[in-house]
Amino acid sequence: MSIITLTTDFGLKDHFVSAVKGAIYTQLPDAKIVDISHEISPFHITEAAYVIQNAYKNFPKGSIHIVGIDSEFTPENKHIAVLLDGHYFICANNGLIGLITSEFNPEKTVEINIHDTVKSNFPVLDVFVTVACHIARGGTLEVIGKTVSEIKTIKGITPIVNLEGKQIVGSIIYIDNYGNLITNITQKLFKDIGKGRQFKIIARTAVFGNVYERYSDAINFNIEKNKREEDGKKLAIFNSSGYLELAIYKSNPKTVGGASTLFGLNYRDTVTINFE
Amino acid sequence: MSIITLTTDFGLKDHFVSAVKGAIYTQLPDAKIVDISHEISPFHITEAAYVIQNAYKNFPKGSIHIVGIDSEFTPENKHIAVLLDGHYFICANNGLIGLITSEFNPEKTVEINIHDTVKSNFPVLDVFVTVACHIARGGTLEVIGKTVSEIKTIKGITPIVNLEGKQIVGSIIYIDNYGNLITNITQKLFKDIGKGRQFKIIARTAVFGNVYERYSDAINFNIEKNKREEDGKKLAIFNSSGYLELAIYKSNPKTVGGASTLFGLNYRDTVTINFE
Amino acid sequence: MSIITLTTDFGLKDHFVSAVKGAIYTQLPDAKIVDISHEISPFHITEAAYVIQNAYKNFPKGSIHIVGIDSEFTPENKHIAVLLDGHYFICANNGLIGLITSEFNPEKTVEINIHDTVKSNFPVLDVFVTVACHIARGGTLEVIGKTVSEIKTIKGITPIVNLEGKQIVGSIIYIDNYGNLITNITQKLFKDIGKGRQFKIIARTAVFGNVYERYSDAINFNIEKNKREEDGKKLAIFNSSGYLELAIYKSNPKTVGGASTLFGLNYRDTVTINFE
Repeated sequence: MSIITLTTDFGLKDHFVSAVKGAIYTQLPDAKIVDISHEISPFHITEAAYVIQNAYKNFPKGSIHIVGIDSEFTPENKHIAVLLDGHYFICANNGLIGLITSEFNPEKTVEINIHDTVKSNFPVLDVFVTVACHIARGGTLEVIGKTVSEIKTIKGITPIVNLEGKQIVGSIIYIDNYGNLITNITQKLFKDIGKGRQFKIIARTAVFGNVYERYSDAINFNIEKNKREEDGKKLAIFNSSGYLELAIYKSNPKTVGGASTLFGLNYRDTVTINFE
Repeated sequence: MSIITLTTDFGLKDHFVSAVKGAIYTQLPDAKIVDISHEISPFHITEAAYVIQNAYKNFPKGSIHIVGIDSEFTPENKHIAVLLDGHYFICANNGLIGLITSEFNPEKTVEINIHDTVKSNFPVLDVFVTVACHIARGGTLEVIGKTVSEIKTIKGITPIVNLEGKQIVGSIIYIDNYGNLITNITQKLFKDIGKGRQFKIIARTAVFGNVYERYSDAINFNIEKNKREEDGKKLAIFNSSGYLELAIYKSNPKTVGGASTLFGLNYRDTVTINFE
Repeated sequence: MSIITLTTDFGLKDHFVSAVKGAIYTQLPDAKIVDISHEISPFHITEAAYVIQNAYKNFPKGSIHIVGIDSEFTPENKHIAVLLDGHYFICANNGLIGLITSEFNPEKTVEINIHDTVKSNFPVLDVFVTVACHIARGGTLEVIGKTVSEIKTIKGITPIVNLEGKQIVGSIIYIDNYGNLITNITQKLFKDIGKGRQFKIIARTAVFGNVYERYSDAINFNIEKNKREEDGKKLAIFNSSGYLELAIYKSNPKTVGGASTLFGLNYRDTVTINFE
């Protein structure tokens, strides 16, 4: 039985998430349901994409990922089921899929057309669950929709490289639980453009001349623990997802503040890398 | 094996929820446990009732629902197990059951009397888990308590219709993850009283002359996207649970605010419908 | 198949938790994964210890507990796997294990040495999952590390008893979902030192002359409900975990405030018991 994952902006207080789970178990008593996240900011597609991108790869191929973000069915917001990198995604055709991966093209995409039989104000419950259970039972995408060759894309959220190849201008795409700032600049792009040159990363008033591989690389363990600068130290790293991240070592955003509050940076703010 | 669901005001940080799950798995290694919500406001029975009411129907008949809200065992707060609409509910006799449904009468209610053998400060763990596992193993309600014919009810939270049938006075019973305001006025009551007449819904300074079936019905898709009013638009709808809801289209209560903050409305505030 | 539990400071929004679950299911399709908590304050070992201590005992012996708090692998923060009280714990050697229990000594402790083959910025995903799945498949600890006889301990968080045995000075170690304050003073210590004498508990300006066994013991049910002091009443109890807790009866920290805000007390603040 395939795993069915859920990513939504429903939050964990309301009945929405459990209603969806109940509906799945009613159809498939042996379903294995895993929450990816229900705390996506309401209607925030780029945030959802970052979370799903980094989560889905850890699940077995053939997993079915329901994405309930901005999923109301309208003339401009059709529902699709996509086979991508061996995983199934069920979501609105709102640009999300293109944000999840630029490496892979969808192997198959169908526009879901079972809406005549299910009509509701809660499409994740009524439409997406039906489609997910159909796929989990081994059903094909063609049965639930017609194949489409193009899906909606969102522009303007990839970094820009200047003509001389001396500058990358990216932006903050996600702020994590520790208040650390994740940019849209990948380690690959950084290496391809930088070619080993020295550089300065500038984000508002914060400047970084190094990018570490691990948080603790910023700490000099040869200095005695009580003599060295440690907690609250600012650093840039390539995070476990391969993105440039601006961080505070061992930060707690609820008490002393994280990188976001300490650097005064938020979603969409600019991060510039100048190479020598 | 029946599904066991959990609804509590325990929150997700403390050990309470996982202690309950561990105890269930210790008794029933193959148990299927589903969280409904653990973010109910502390001791807030009406909030719990709204969430459970809209969640439980999606689970298979025979599911067992543990409700850990205001469940300390006192002379005034006995524990009951109730068979209702084909589902089992284990909770305190604090008015919750009557709030979950007015459509159905309990098929069977017992007052749990196993407290001599289990004595604790954590009744959900000690008493409710024992009862839930007993039912899940196919045990009868009679074994764990004596049948009672009446359960506690809470008054004053149904809408009032005036004598001329021209006015419904309801109130806010829930605020959802998007900040939208759910009233206790059902679509059925609205239709029965309104009989198709024109109306005005008044909630503090917000006035609505229409009730939509879906959020997107408030949007005119014939107007070009960048020319039409959309985000932040206020609307009244009958939500997927059948209640009148006052909403902001695509609201994010953490940034621009949701209906609750924008209309200045909170729990128990009055919503009036005047029919012509 | 053993249960695998997860306790982290990852929060529930980011991809971290689901990535770990996906990785476990990829290795062990039939794994049973239970969340203990993902809302531990970042890097807060004592908070994690309190939660795990009270959760783990409810799970069956042989359960495997992954603890992802301050787990980056450094020269000062090695990874260990510990068999303790019949349960397996996989965590950093950062003092956590000693805080979980003082009753039991570890039956076996190994320092994990599989880091040559897995190198990453996300050790819970790469190292801890591998170790947990190894144990779940019946593997021995010796295969994944070398036995060590000592583990790191943290000092200064046990209560102090004065020489005359007339005073216990403890501190707040946890604040729960209701805002109630849990101290490090156990019921056992209280009884051993107090020997039935009268006492006063002093915490800043709050003073208590009684310790109840249950919250509702603070309420006099012989007085009519609407005439008695009830909601908001302050009390000291021994909680279900056996610790002295300073509480507000039926408090809601988000509205009227809980014990923490009402008494003006926070983590590490002092609680003194003076016996006559």
